[in-house]
Amino acid sequence: MQKSPFIKLKYNLMQKGKFITIDGVEGAGKSTQIDFICQYLTDKGINVVLTREPGGTEVGEKIRTLLLSNSTGKMHADTELMLMFAARNEHIQNKIIPTLNQGDWILSDRFTDASYAYQGGGRGLDIARIAQLEQWVLRSFAPDMTLLLDIPVDIGMRRVESRGEKDRIEQESLDFFNRVRNSYIARSEQYPERIKLIDASQNVENISNEIQKILKTL
Amino acid sequence: MQKSPFIKLKYNLMQKGKFITIDGVEGAGKSTQIDFICQYLTDKGINVVLTREPGGTEVGEKIRTLLLSNSTGKMHADTELMLMFAARNEHIQNKIIPTLNQGDWILSDRFTDASYAYQGGGRGLDIARIAQLEQWVLRSFAPDMTLLLDIPVDIGMRRVESRGEKDRIEQESLDFFNRVRNSYIARSEQYPERIKLIDASQNVENISNEIQKILKTL
Ligand SMILES: Nc1ncnc2c1ncn2[C@@H]1O[C@H](COP(=O)(O)OP(=O)(O)O)[C@@H](O)[C@H]1O
Ligand SMILES: Nc1ncnc2c1ncn2[C@@H]1O[C@H](COP(=O)(O)OP(=O)(O)O)[C@@H](O)[C@H]1O
Ligand SMILES: [Mg+2]
Ligand SMILES: [Mg+2]
Repeated sequence: MQKSPFIKLKYNLMQKGKFITIDGVEGAGKSTQIDFICQYLTDKGINVVLTREPGGTEVGEKIRTLLLSNSTGKMHADTELMLMFAARNEHIQNKIIPTLNQGDWILSDRFTDASYAYQGGGRGLDIARIAQLEQWVLRSFAPDMTLLLDIPVDIGMRRVESRGEKDRIEQESLDFFNRVRNSYIARSEQYPERIKLIDASQNVENISNEIQKILKTL
Repeated sequence: MQKSPFIKLKYNLMQKGKFITIDGVEGAGKSTQIDFICQYLTDKGINVVLTREPGGTEVGEKIRTLLLSNSTGKMHADTELMLMFAARNEHIQNKIIPTLNQGDWILSDRFTDASYAYQGGGRGLDIARIAQLEQWVLRSFAPDMTLLLDIPVDIGMRRVESRGEKDRIEQESLDFFNRVRNSYIARSEQYPERIKLIDASQNVENISNEIQKILKTL
């Protein structure tokens, strides 16, 4: 019989590696800084696995397609949230924990904070209800460190304008993304130890320098 | 801003129609009796909408494909459960409640009891954790009546042998389906008012007669 994640997270997590997440609105520079972080950690002799949400596993990437594809059509916001957490459960159980247990580090492009920001702030879902699903899936599991790249929404959007067709969530309004940004900021104020707010309107090198200083504390 | 299902179920459900579900292991005769029920209710002048789980909505049918397709591969049992409830949320919000509110009846081929039977009994997930997701999605919402067609697993399996390739869940062992059957029976004992246990090893007409008597009580 398969054990619940409670059992698994409590007894099977002998975390030897570190779990880092990077979050923020589109165009904040996550992918750009991920390249830097991977290079930096590799230079230090650390094995780092790069992953993303929604996705990161075979089933998770299929859920991602469902969530982001424009052909999916309208869905209820609670359905969207549950799909995010379904993909996240698969990600934690079948990729993140196994990676940490074998002593490697893992860096995820977005994680649970994005559910609070997009489905909570953006869609207006009740934070307490999001916390219930987080508790159900994650128990006491959490990233060791979250890098929050903060940027005014219009600047981020201008940076990614050339990316081509927008996906189902990217098509939301400026207002939506401003609520997302504000939720991210509120979370960094609520969890200052874990979530490091970084001014992402600076140039690439300055941001990388800030990230480097933060990583040294790990 | 979109409201949570709590708000929705509490304030927007002015249920005028009835919600009936039919459940049981494969081959119990659900599809056969659904035909009878639709005919019977239609003859009484009742508009009845037929639906199914997982599925019943555009997004739900896509989740169904992910859940049942053999090309999906292995997934963690908690992921399977969350996908079932994601599809169910969409189903309740976008099909079941709107149908009941417009005064029609709705008949679903499987519903939440199947999650307790398959993911609880079959996969061994903790019943209390399933109840948490049920509470999150359904609040106090529940079917008006559930018809549980009970049959020894091997007889049901023999009935559906000619159906061709088995889906991802149908490929489970006899032991798995015996646990599913026992969970269904346990639930009918726990909720005798709502869940009507019917001996589905009888001939089609006898089962239909029993169902007709039960429907008359509604
Ligand atoms: N600090 C920066 N200043 C100016 N442009 C940047 C900066 N960081 C990234 N960019 C550019 O902005 C665009 C989006 O960056 P990207 O790293 O893909 O963001 P994200 O992954 O957060 O959406 C890319 O074209 C990238 O080259
Ligand atoms: N009471 C019954 N006795 C014998 N065969 C039955 C009975 N009910 C259904 N069948 C047959 O068994 C097979 C499975 O029935 P079906 O209604 O499709 O079951 P389910 O939808 O529960 O999987 C069909 O071939 C059907 O004709
Ligand atoms: Mg990116
Ligand atoms: Mg059937």
